[in-house]
Order: sequence, then structure tokens, then C-alpha cells
Amino acid sequence: RIDPARLWDSLEEMAKVGPGIAGGCNRQTLTDADSEGRHLFRAWAEAAGMTMKLDRMGNMFFLREGAEPGLLPVAMGSHLDTQPTGGKYDGVLGVLGALEVVRTLNDMGVRTRHPIMITNWTNEEGARFAPAMLASGVYAGMLTEDYANARQDAEGKTFGAELDRIGWRGEEPVGAEKFHAMFELHIEQGPILEAKAKDIGVVTHGQGLWWLEITYTGKDAHTGSTPMSMRVNAGRGVAQMIEAVHQIAMRHQPDVVGAVGQMNVWPNSRNVIPGKAVFTVDIRSPHQGKLDAMRAEVERAARDIARGLGLGVELEAVGHFDPVAFDPDLVKVVRAQAEALGFSHMDIVSGAGHDACWVNRVAPTVMIMCPCVDGLSHNEAEKITPEWAAAGSDVLLHSVLEVAGV
Amino acid sequence: RIDPARLWDSLEEMAKVGPGIAGGCNRQTLTDADSEGRHLFRAWAEAAGMTMKLDRMGNMFFLREGAEPGLLPVAMGSHLDTQPTGGKYDGVLGVLGALEVVRTLNDMGVRTRHPIMITNWTNEEGARFAPAMLASGVYAGMLTEDYANARQDAEGKTFGAELDRIGWRGEEPVGAEKFHAMFELHIEQGPILEAKAKDIGVVTHGQGLWWLEITYTGKDAHTGSTPMSMRVNAGRGVAQMIEAVHQIAMRHQPDVVGAVGQMNVWPNSRNVIPGKAVFTVDIRSPHQGKLDAMRAEVERAARDIARGLGLGVELEAVGHFDPVAFDPDLVKVVRAQAEALGFSHMDIVSGAGHDACWVNRVAPTVMIMCPCVDGLSHNEAEKITPEWAAAGSDVLLHSVLEVAGV
Ligand SMILES: NC(=O)NCCC(=O)O
Ligand SMILES: NC(=O)NCCC(=O)O
Repeated sequence: RIDPARLWDSLEEMAKVGPGIAGGCNRQTLTDADSEGRHLFRAWAEAAGMTMKLDRMGNMFFLREGAEPGLLPVAMGSHLDTQPTGGKYDGVLGVLGALEVVRTLNDMGVRTRHPIMITNWTNEEGARFAPAMLASGVYAGMLTEDYANARQDAEGKTFGAELDRIGWRGEEPVGAEKFHAMFELHIEQGPILEAKAKDIGVVTHGQGLWWLEITYTGKDAHTGSTPMSMRVNAGRGVAQMIEAVHQIAMRHQPDVVGAVGQMNVWPNSRNVIPGKAVFTVDIRSPHQGKLDAMRAEVERAARDIARGLGLGVELEAVGHFDPVAFDPDLVKVVRAQAEALGFSHMDIVSGAGHDACWVNRVAPTVMIMCPCVDGLSHNEAEKITPEWAAAGSDVLLHSVLEVAGV
Repeated sequence: RIDPARLWDSLEEMAKVGPGIAGGCNRQTLTDADSEGRHLFRAWAEAAGMTMKLDRMGNMFFLREGAEPGLLPVAMGSHLDTQPTGGKYDGVLGVLGALEVVRTLNDMGVRTRHPIMITNWTNEEGARFAPAMLASGVYAGMLTEDYANARQDAEGKTFGAELDRIGWRGEEPVGAEKFHAMFELHIEQGPILEAKAKDIGVVTHGQGLWWLEITYTGKDAHTGSTPMSMRVNAGRGVAQMIEAVHQIAMRHQPDVVGAVGQMNVWPNSRNVIPGKAVFTVDIRSPHQGKLDAMRAEVERAARDIARGLGLGVELEAVGHFDPVAFDPDLVKVVRAQAEALGFSHMDIVSGAGHDACWVNRVAPTVMIMCPCVDGLSHNEAEKITPEWAAAGSDVLLHSVLEVAGV
């Protein structure tokens, strides 16, 4: 079994890097805080005897040699970046849980047949640069390096320039590291495991997603002296779409979600009718058919609403992945280890996107989930218990041992 | 008659201070650009033989002595501050038109019985610090100095600190300057004069207004892994209110308007359900009864929507003035001078709020309006013709001469 106190200490230590304003974290990707977190993690991994490789997207790979030459490594990992007002565990548990596994193997003097590798993927959150899971998407060959480097944040800074600025662009070609298998431990970010009182979620599938960025163009005008009949109000476009997205998601229940998380109007002044609005629709489902149908309905609604209000409309897909089925053999391994260790468990579908969803396209992959209080995530109040963190890490340890061999 | 070319040159010169991004201006109140504009105007007014007084709100008063001792000045003026993406004429025409009147009197060697005064009121727009017409409100005794000094911009900077920072806080007690009468020339900011092909609007009334700032509190949560039934989405609150305000305004037609110009959600990230939203409702009518009824309906809607979505709600009135009837004698003067000068004219109600609305409470006041292209204002593309500017300034000249005496 892993050392729960050591794991918890590391989680608390990492949370001090890029602290939030309400007890959580603001360690957004490619910020100075992200760089500081990477340095801390590198120091820990090297102290555990691992050696680092760094690819051209800033993805970090730490190697622990195996006993048998020529075998591919068994990878574990997740991401260290956070939302602007994020929690301490989303992503971080998967990286530091993996480190705890290696520390435990060191303590026990265990040498695995396959090498072991820990990964930290760049820009999983997609908060600063859309889309989410950007660098694992390039790793899996689903997105190009040029596309990734050109992504812009709200201030117009590019992913490529920011990666160079913080000094974490490596030399290694993206995708050069091949895996025998890949495990991602992650908090559920939803309420199901806690509600069903399960220690472990065995993740069989992941939802697919579309992020559609919509730009409405109306006419800035004075709120006081412009007659109602002459208004071309881009703010009303956002308003109608927020409700339309909600209705579309409700119509397709169960197993779909939809919302608008980001919205900006211009010039955003109390006495100016908004002349421009930009916002992102987020729709998801584990069923390809439902996801496709929702996308079509959202696009139709966006155009109908524009027509109704006389607005100009532009649509751009800024994020997408298809529904995912994880590797059936690895799913069985995780389920068997949870069972063997005496943890309550259930099969579960991931509501969030994860780096594992991309990696699954190029290597057998699976996820292990632990509960989180109230299902709350992407919130500084995100919370898990040390017991949940330990249970997930124990299942990770034994699953990796099973696949890597002793 | 005034000199149309000289007036137009000054308008163009002032527009270079705090230029916008699309041909208009960004000379928001108490910024460095505002300070620069004040210096330029002061130089011009002093070159025209006037002397400056400055009050504790940064309101500027330029005096041209009259022939008869002991008489109160006849004032003219407006504001030099602009919206973040504002036009070149909103406010500015009223200040520079007044300067052109004085330059013309100088050219003709005319000495009036009453002194003449030109005013530039601080923070008319209310874009940076709500409410609009803040410093003229203090001048008229409707708002206190402490209230004004404590108003905050989006970055939390206060009006008082910013006024001190740019160095334009004077010594003179606010309200110390008394007027015999006050004239404000302003662009209509609406489409009526142009549509009816009138050179001059004789402003008989001004709309009343409420600005209600509403804060909705929900729960930040993951857009992917939070079931639809568990969401407390503050963004849906804004959406429903934007539409509710529009419907309320449509129900009370004619003679009312309503919209939401400013809205922000937190954390404003693509994959986070907004946990907080702050936005401002702007409702107006020249009829006190309609304004009161709309305010009650907006507040009821805000609470009903909060209840429906499970949101916390706070309401704060951040701006208010009652409907205004301008001085009937001065209205007659303006109408008669427009007629005598051969300009087409019509009586009109001001859709926007103006400093004149506050000054009207402490001195006989009236406004003169000129058309603007497409009724467009609070937009960098705001446009008037040199002929319209000249016609309004000529009516201002002759109205002031009539009231100040020769
Ligand atoms: N796990 C997680 O929150 N990933 C961000 C991508 C997403 O929005 O699902
Ligand atoms: N004239 C003008 O735009 N004033 C600002 C106050 C208002 O919104 O009416």
C-alpha cells in the first residue's frame, strides 16, 4: 500500500504554488506559477530516481528504468495546470498519485519488468488556451503542433510564445515517447461515486464534446436614446442562446449536458447596447448520435436567433473530441485490483475530458476515479478526503504492477 | 453667426486626445487622456480671455466678465469625457460650441450684461464610475461629495483617488458657482431629428432613469461532469433577465426603453458553470408612472428568476434621476431663436441623461439638440455634419445673447 500521509503532504505542498483567492489554486497553464509547479515536481521526481524528458509541447516524461531491456514503459499521469479558480486535486492527484506509486516501489525495492513513466501534460484545462487537453491532443496526433502554438489567450498571447517564455519547451519530438499502457488517476468531478458511496470508479467510457465559439455582431448604441425598434442588441443573442443550449440539453436527457461558461460583450458599458458578443457553448455526451444531434441543433439555434435579432453570426469549433471507450483489458485490470484490495467500486463514464481520452488513441489506456465532495470541481472549494486519495493511488499501484510485471 | 470651420477644427483637435480604436474616442473620466483634454480646453478658454475656477469634484468653470456688476453668469457647457468606445461629439460639442460662442463674441467685440460662463462637468458618462452625471449631481445637491469620492471603477479604484491622481481636484466648494441660466447644446444621440429632417431639437423634457445592478450567486461547477439537475447557473440568471427587461420595456411602449449593457460572469471559463454574475439593468421613461412601474417589474422579475434557478440575488440602485421638465421660459427662448435664424426645429424629449437634467434643479436650464447620423451614439462611428454643429451653436449664441443681454 502507498503512504497516505506522504501523498497528502505533497498535494498540500503543490497547492501552495499559484494559490487561489478562496483556498484553491490559480496555476493556469504556461504562467509563472505553472513553471514553478513544474520545477517542484521535477525536483521530487528526480529525488525519486527518475530522469526527465521534455517534448516540444512542454509535456514532461519521467522514466524509472525497468528490469527487461527493450520493453515500452507503463505510463501514469495527468496534469498540474488548473482553472483560474480551480481546486487542489483536479489533475494534480493523478500526477502526485503516480509519484507516490514510484516512491512506494522505491521503498519496497521493487523493480518492474517494464519501465515506469510519469507524465505531466501541458494545458489540460483549456481555460487559458482553448481547446482543453491541447498538448496530449498533439501527442496523440489529433492536433498539429502549429495549431497548438498559434492558440491565443484572452490577451492575444500565443501558446507557443508563452511556452518559450516560461522556458519549458523541450527538444523531443511530440509523440516520440511510446507507452505499453497508460493509467490516469483523477477525481470524478461529479457527484455519482459519493452518492453511491463507492471508493473507486472504474472508468469505462468518456463523454465526447464540442466547444462552439459564437460571435454575434449588432450595433453599439445608446441605451437611452435609441428606440426599441432600432436596436440590434448582441447581448440578447447571448441571452437567447444560453437558454437555448439549456433547453437542447434538457430535451436530449439523459446522458447529455450543455452550458455556456464563457461570455463577453462589448463595449460592456452600462449605457451602451452591446454591439458585439463572444461566448462558448459546451455540449457533451457519451453517445455519438446524441452529440452530433445536439451540435446540429445548437448551430441551427445560433443562426435562427441571429436572424430573429438581425445579428451577424460566426461559429467556430474551438474544441472537440469524440466519445471514448477505454481499453477493455485495462478496465478489467482496474476492476480486479479494486476488488482485490477490498474497495467498493463501480463502472463509471467520465463527464469531463481527460488527457487519457487522447492517449487512448495511440496506446491502451484506462482511468481510475475517486469521489469528490458534492461532485464539486472547477471551484476553489473542490475537496477530497485523504482516504479517497489513498484508495485511488493504491488501485493505481497494483494495476501498474499487474501490467508492468515484477 | 459663429465660425463653422473654427468650431469644426477644435472638435477634430480635441478628438486626437484619447483616440479610440475605430475613429472615435476613449477619453474616459479621470484617465490621463481626460487630464490632457482638460489642459487643452483650459488653454483655449484662457486664450479666449476667460479665467478658470475648479471645484472639489473637478468641475471646470470659465468666466467671461459681464458689463453690469453683481449679476449671475449665464452658463453654457457639457462634458469632455467619453465612453470607452465613444464618439467625438457626445458632450464635446456642448463644450466647444460654448467656446465658439465666446470666440464669436470676442470677434464682434460684444460685451454682455450678465457674465458668461463655460462649464465642463466631471464624469458625465458613468462608464467608468456609475452613476452617470456624477459631478453635476453633486453640484445640484442631489448626491454627496463622499458618495461621489467613494465610487469605484471595475478595478476598484475610487473616483476620489483618481481625481487626485490626475491633479484636477480644485478648492472651490461644489455648488458655489450660481447661474442665472444654463444652456446645454448636445447631439441628439437618437434618430428623430434626422428622420424628421430638423436642424434643431428644442428639448422640453428629459427621460427619468434607473440603473439597477444585480448580482446573482450560483455555484461554480464543471460543465462536463455536473448533472443538469445539480446546476446552479448564474449565467442563466443573466440570460433570463436580459430577455425579461426587454419584454418589460416592450409591454410599456411607447415612451420607455430598457436594456442590459454591462454583464460579467465568473470565473468566465469555457468549462465552468458560472457561479456568479453581475450586470446592470438600464430602464428609462419621461413618464414617472411608467418608470416606477417598470422598476417594480424589473425587481420582481430579478427575484422570481433567482427563485426559479435557486440563485442568491442582490439588487443595488447605482444610478437614478426622475423625469425632467426644462425651464419653460428658456424653452421659449430657444424655440424663438431657432425660428428667427431660419432653422427647421421641433420640440423633443431627451432620451439620454445630461448634466442639464441635474442643473435644472438649481437654476433655470434648457437644452438645444442637433441631429446625429442614424441616431448612433456611444459608438465610435458617431457622426454629425459641420452644418448641424454650426446651426446648434448659432442657436446657442443667440439664446445666450437674449438671456445675458447686451
Ligand atoms: N478534467 C477536466 O476538467 N478537464 C478539462 C477539460 C474539460 O472541460 O473536460
Ligand atoms: N448623454 C449621455 O450619453 N449621457 C450619459 C448618461 C446616460 O446614459 O444617459
